[in-house]
Amino acid sequence: MKSRGRARAYANIALIKYWGKRDEKLVLPMNSSLSLTIDCFYTETEVIFRKDVDRDYFYLNDKLQGKDTTEKVSKFLDLFRKAAGLNLSAVVKSRNYVPTAAGLASSASGFAALAAAANVASGLNLDNRQLSIYARQGSGSAARSIYGGFVEWKKGSSHQDSYAVPIDDAQWDIGIVIVMVNSMEKLISSREGMKRTVDTSPFYKVWVESAEEDLKHIKIAIRNRDFKKTGLIAERNGLKMHAIMLGANPPFCYWEPDSLKVMQIVRQLRREGIYCYFTLDAGPNVKILCRLSESHKIKDRLIQFFDPDQVIIAKPGPGITIL
Amino acid sequence: MKSRGRARAYANIALIKYWGKRDEKLVLPMNSSLSLTIDCFYTETEVIFRKDVDRDYFYLNDKLQGKDTTEKVSKFLDLFRKAAGLNLSAVVKSRNYVPTAAGLASSASGFAALAAAANVASGLNLDNRQLSIYARQGSGSAARSIYGGFVEWKKGSSHQDSYAVPIDDAQWDIGIVIVMVNSMEKLISSREGMKRTVDTSPFYKVWVESAEEDLKHIKIAIRNRDFKKTGLIAERNGLKMHAIMLGANPPFCYWEPDSLKVMQIVRQLRREGIYCYFTLDAGPNVKILCRLSESHKIKDRLIQFFDPDQVIIAKPGPGITIL
Repeated sequence: MKSRGRARAYANIALIKYWGKRDEKLVLPMNSSLSLTIDCFYTETEVIFRKDVDRDYFYLNDKLQGKDTTEKVSKFLDLFRKAAGLNLSAVVKSRNYVPTAAGLASSASGFAALAAAANVASGLNLDNRQLSIYARQGSGSAARSIYGGFVEWKKGSSHQDSYAVPIDDAQWDIGIVIVMVNSMEKLISSREGMKRTVDTSPFYKVWVESAEEDLKHIKIAIRNRDFKKTGLIAERNGLKMHAIMLGANPPFCYWEPDSLKVMQIVRQLRREGIYCYFTLDAGPNVKILCRLSESHKIKDRLIQFFDPDQVIIAKPGPGITIL
Repeated sequence: MKSRGRARAYANIALIKYWGKRDEKLVLPMNSSLSLTIDCFYTETEVIFRKDVDRDYFYLNDKLQGKDTTEKVSKFLDLFRKAAGLNLSAVVKSRNYVPTAAGLASSASGFAALAAAANVASGLNLDNRQLSIYARQGSGSAARSIYGGFVEWKKGSSHQDSYAVPIDDAQWDIGIVIVMVNSMEKLISSREGMKRTVDTSPFYKVWVESAEEDLKHIKIAIRNRDFKKTGLIAERNGLKMHAIMLGANPPFCYWEPDSLKVMQIVRQLRREGIYCYFTLDAGPNVKILCRLSESHKIKDRLIQFFDPDQVIIAKPGPGITIL
């Protein structure tokens, strides 16, 4: 048995959002979602199962992690240990590669890389589809980071058929400009925010139906390489996700004043004929879907208002890589 | 026949929002709404029916208005002329009293004052309930400005029973702090925004049900003079209105970065034990429902970020006054 595995996985930006679980434990989503894997945020992780340690150790960016974080990793590794009939503790070393110190931790790249490394180290050698099912149980959106380009995470009907599938390699003129916006308020975790929305927002049921519709249409738009339609559907879908949070009780909103400023700049760029579309997740950063060939023009406009360090250009990224 | 009438009417701030018509022509709303009349924005209007003019003339703040605006006034006066069997043109002089040059035009105070003045001038002498039905046809929210304090506009089942009723005189420790925020983008008129939301937002149906629920609960809270509950329901209801706009196609949002800034300040004040609650309408200004006794404390905090001219303290206002 090869007891060591090492892998890289990239972050992804959801264009059709995942927001709400129908099964908290198995991480089964209420609706299918779709994302674009990006090249500029990634995680590299090494897993070694060792006989000479009596518990799991987890180092993130060279720093040994405490009990709570390590426990999450251990629980995730248990899935592999159980399937492989393995009774060894592990030393896990993980590093997040992010273009600025500002952060933008990605549980998607984190759990996808961990899954891919554990897959090798445990000798399970699952295929990508199975790996996606495993990654999903670490963090829902990690299911999508197994693949590169445009990826759909099918909600499925049960544990075994809720996985991601690659849709399009995104090798056309597509990019994402990310604007890092500092948060002034303590953020609600996406886990908690999802739960509150599912439990209390009167709009939630409509969201689920509407997201499935959006997914159907964006897949057609991507297949036709219809950039404008892809962007418009993504922007509308993202706004609907934030709408259902405003409907929750108590309501919450991840937007900061600067997030709104970026949305206004995007709309202004469109009026000038530079087609680009914004989307936000469980935080104030704004991701702008654009033509990669126009990404520098968009960055130039943004840095009239923001520090250049806050504006990052991302290209479509690949799927997991075994290192 | 007394052919001259003069009246004053005050603006109102909706705590349960009116957003969407079930009859565009008669201005019948999709849901009942509730507002607080305020004392600091009002309109004074004089209507004189005269034999010596051959068309209607409309002066707003001493300025003769053009064809489009005058036509709206004429159409509204026609309701009174028809009911009174009157065949005379009118000279209408109207003045908006607003605390700053920044504006905040109020069609609610405008049409309520016009209705009250025309009521006297035409000799119709309608009671307030009938007057509310007339004012409604000029501008929906004007139906509520007939009365002072907390006012409910009952959606009714038809033209003749869709009117406002006074709920509570608001003679308790209640005030509204208004933060005037400049708009960077061209605003969608509330008429157009409502229509787009009704026609395209998948959340609209749920909004209507939810607003009726909110109304029921806020009336109980007001009856109990439960300030915190009143504020929480109002804040949540307002956010839901903005949520359904985000769900429209194309989506739209009246918030500016500074609007979000004010919302954050309000939440911060609450964490400090100063209970106050925000609500926004079809524009970026933020209205903060508060204890009148704490309004200066709230203003003091706001002017750390905004110009003192942008922050206005309003008290509960009275209903229409015949001058």
